[in-house]
Amino acid sequence: MTPMDTNLSGAKLGTVDPMAELKRLRKSIDNIDAALIHMLAERFRCTQTVGALKAEHDLPPADPAREKEQIARLRRLADEADLDPEFAETFLNFVIKEVIRHHEAIAAERGMTP
Amino acid sequence: MTPMDTNLSGAKLGTVDPMAELKRLRKSIDNIDAALIHMLAERFRCTQTVGALKAEHDLPPADPAREKEQIARLRRLADEADLDPEFAETFLNFVIKEVIRHHEAIAAERGMTP
Repeated sequence: MTPMDTNLSGAKLGTVDPMAELKRLRKSIDNIDAALIHMLAERFRCTQTVGALKAEHDLPPADPAREKEQIARLRRLADEADLDPEFAETFLNFVIKEVIRHHEAIAAERGMTP
Repeated sequence: MTPMDTNLSGAKLGTVDPMAELKRLRKSIDNIDAALIHMLAERFRCTQTVGALKAEHDLPPADPAREKEQIARLRRLADEADLDPEFAETFLNFVIKEVIRHHEAIAAERGMTP
């Protein structure tokens, strides 16, 4: 026990050394970040294939109805997981912006206007 | 087989119906998005606890050395997973911005300046 463990403020954090607790939480954050990076990498592998498929078969690059469904679903999932639905929507838009950038690059490679 | 399956262009996508393939890919994207939303929800649970811990023990809210390490690690993980490291860094900054917003809200609740 260190003097920091005496918990004079009546916090619910108990008698754990705060620096040890911080280290423990950061390890979880690092694990989650690795999972997020790999999930994002896999998502872009899927959207790259979608981009190639759409270019190959002259399918329209954007699908507003699909996007609307995606946003509504992610907001619902976020709400259920106690994540701010606004943040979930902003996050999806952030990712979609990157997808569009990739699709434009695919179209440019094939000499098409996106 | 539909006329779209004849693959006249010699694409590597084979003889699969493109709409069926699009549907299949979108199902994967939806699964990945659900995983991302739940990972993000869990990450914010961790950072909320970090915020409370820091406020409780008067630890500095920002830690530039830690952030620098996080960015370097995520860029490396992204590179290994064929994800653009620039995107990974932008993504982390996007998430950290939301974390700071949460921490400011915690500090405001406790009547502190963040």
